[in-house]
Amino acid sequence: MSSPLPKVVIVGAGFAGLRAVRQLAGAPVQVTLVDQNNYHLFQPLLYQVATAGVSATDIAYPVRAIFRKQANFSFRMAKVSGVDFSARQVLTERGPIPYDQLILGVGGETNTFGLQGVARHAFPLKSLDDAIRLRNHILRMFELSSQANDPAARLALRTFVVVGGGPTGVECAGALSELIRLVLVKDFPGLDLSDVQVHLVERMDSLLPGFPSQLSAAAAETLRRKHVTLNFGWQVQDYDGEALCLADGSRLPARTLVWAAGVQAVSLLRLIGLPTSRQGRVPVLPTLQVPGYENLWVVGDAAYLEEAGQPLPMMAPVAIQQGELAAKNILRQLAAQPLQEFQFKDPGSLATIGRNAAVARINRLNFSGFAAWLVWLAVHIFWLIGFRNRLLVMINWAWDYLFYERAVRLITSQGASDASYSPSRIDPEDG
Amino acid sequence: MSSPLPKVVIVGAGFAGLRAVRQLAGAPVQVTLVDQNNYHLFQPLLYQVATAGVSATDIAYPVRAIFRKQANFSFRMAKVSGVDFSARQVLTERGPIPYDQLILGVGGETNTFGLQGVARHAFPLKSLDDAIRLRNHILRMFELSSQANDPAARLALRTFVVVGGGPTGVECAGALSELIRLVLVKDFPGLDLSDVQVHLVERMDSLLPGFPSQLSAAAAETLRRKHVTLNFGWQVQDYDGEALCLADGSRLPARTLVWAAGVQAVSLLRLIGLPTSRQGRVPVLPTLQVPGYENLWVVGDAAYLEEAGQPLPMMAPVAIQQGELAAKNILRQLAAQPLQEFQFKDPGSLATIGRNAAVARINRLNFSGFAAWLVWLAVHIFWLIGFRNRLLVMINWAWDYLFYERAVRLITSQGASDASYSPSRIDPEDG
Repeated sequence: MSSPLPKVVIVGAGFAGLRAVRQLAGAPVQVTLVDQNNYHLFQPLLYQVATAGVSATDIAYPVRAIFRKQANFSFRMAKVSGVDFSARQVLTERGPIPYDQLILGVGGETNTFGLQGVARHAFPLKSLDDAIRLRNHILRMFELSSQANDPAARLALRTFVVVGGGPTGVECAGALSELIRLVLVKDFPGLDLSDVQVHLVERMDSLLPGFPSQLSAAAAETLRRKHVTLNFGWQVQDYDGEALCLADGSRLPARTLVWAAGVQAVSLLRLIGLPTSRQGRVPVLPTLQVPGYENLWVVGDAAYLEEAGQPLPMMAPVAIQQGELAAKNILRQLAAQPLQEFQFKDPGSLATIGRNAAVARINRLNFSGFAAWLVWLAVHIFWLIGFRNRLLVMINWAWDYLFYERAVRLITSQGASDASYSPSRIDPEDG
Repeated sequence: MSSPLPKVVIVGAGFAGLRAVRQLAGAPVQVTLVDQNNYHLFQPLLYQVATAGVSATDIAYPVRAIFRKQANFSFRMAKVSGVDFSARQVLTERGPIPYDQLILGVGGETNTFGLQGVARHAFPLKSLDDAIRLRNHILRMFELSSQANDPAARLALRTFVVVGGGPTGVECAGALSELIRLVLVKDFPGLDLSDVQVHLVERMDSLLPGFPSQLSAAAAETLRRKHVTLNFGWQVQDYDGEALCLADGSRLPARTLVWAAGVQAVSLLRLIGLPTSRQGRVPVLPTLQVPGYENLWVVGDAAYLEEAGQPLPMMAPVAIQQGELAAKNILRQLAAQPLQEFQFKDPGSLATIGRNAAVARINRLNFSGFAAWLVWLAVHIFWLIGFRNRLLVMINWAWDYLFYERAVRLITSQGASDASYSPSRIDPEDG
């Protein structure tokens, strides 16, 4: 049953990979998507999972269900360990996968800039597991603090620090403050809100780099109104799980540190042996090919490409457009047509700050407040894959909005992951 | 601020504990509920989580939210390690909790009857984590089997054995077979259904002990129609993760074994030093007191009490009614009134067998099929705590029913639990 059609292998079921698969529907190629998870994750809403706004299953969707009707599609759930470029094989824990064309859309990971304590004790926010772990942790801090007698220990349990003034940090700090002040305050009758602190720490002197300054200012103003303490110009030295240490030697006792201060391309790219540039990203030609490889395409967060002298941001819109172009260029190459070069069409930027405020830049239009929040809501619900998921998320959000309530205040306990699987059970020699 | 009101401590946020707390609303007592989790779990629907029918968060509800309006209520999230009866203190990892009256509703756990391999390799179905682990495992078996080349290995990956012909086993086998034959078959285009086996193993010669024989027969007939292979009179010897070993020496290769063949009261009861009887349950007086203790009440699965010469079953209705009576008897004792004895009002039995069939016994009425399924649906949705949860579960089920679809086919990965927390972070010395 082996077909003579060219094999296109796409690694990574993120925005770029999904868009590439879709683009190849109906084309005379065999498409194989490889990912270590069996689902696509809607990363922009991870912070909502972490702050108990939506359930983990609301923002993840099984890959096989997405492409069920695409006849030339197949899926391999496997962790990629490398690429054999001369043999044209993707190497995985379950054996090699041969390819003729390879698209790497492997995404980004948290960058702690070498701070060992941060890497060990802080909470990143890049995967579904990160988000669930953070949610469990936040709720547990309140359970523990309600049983704490020592005031200093209690304050540290109730101090939450978010590092990084980009969209993730801003959204997370806003949602966290609302979770505490609108919801948890009802669950913990003895809770004194003057005892609870949410800090947002930013090295520079404004929020949301890349947004127009009026929107940065609006975001800061909204966060302050939501009782988030903004700390500009703070330089984080390290974090030991008990207190944040700053470059000036001062310490802020806090049992929770969310690290939203940096991303880099996943280290797999270095492992594969590709040259990497800033943030560990692989420099690509404007066609999205890696120089020296005709059949190797890198897209999304994993790719380094400049436009007007600036690196393209690690954002979903870039990934989606690159996934599309890489797929199109593969078809052009197979048809012996000239390749096209990438040009980013910027759809604008959006960041939300809690239940009724956001900032938005769309074309030349800047706006903030409730109108921007409605735009944000519409865009995100539209993008969430799967009608049912959209419906459930909408119900959750409508409920939150109407009743100041959060759906998912569960502390799930040991064993909810499959970390405790015995290897004999999950790694059979049958790949 | 210490109040002279009697302290009623209730251990366990199951059906019995919740009912007891509710019964004490408005009474002149201080109520403290203790549980290691911060949520109540609707155990009868665990199998739905395991078979990807509903999300884990649909069947769990935060305890604090349930009793938010009960002024005399407080909650302690802590793991109980013992009881100091002379000092009248419940001992926990976070320090002692003093009581005047103590209700233990600590529930049941899986009983593997000393089979070491079963304990190590089989999947129990008692906690939320059990269910999520089983769901992940089932879906993973299909991912692996789609990459398996050896026919024998593939068959073992696609053979699912459920041991135990009680309601849990019957419901689980039915739902699993439907998940495979209605949903996964669409996700895995190459899947040959004649290659997939779901076995239900029962030591006796009929299903659903305690149900009228016509309903047992109806359940067996329905399961057979749903392609579940029924194996009566099979005596499980052990399970090594690769194959089920029977008493007659034969082996059934299967990479998945769900153990629904036995329950016992949690071992904490023995640990506490209470005398235990059959299934590790603590014998109680008809007043639900433990003989020799005036202020110690054991309820639900943890209690052993006979009625008409038969032990009361380990079922939600018994637990709910006992929780209510224990609370009432505490108030009677405090008011120096005579105590009442427990009398079980049997509301009937229900078991569902997939998306459109069930068996029901209500009073003297036995019925099966679609009508029974509607009753089952109504009863379970009614009992699910929280209107939003009811709504979401209803949407999920309606969707499944209309589109032969399952919501939650996610394989969540390592770290979704908080098992990887560093102890320094979760166990502060501030109890």
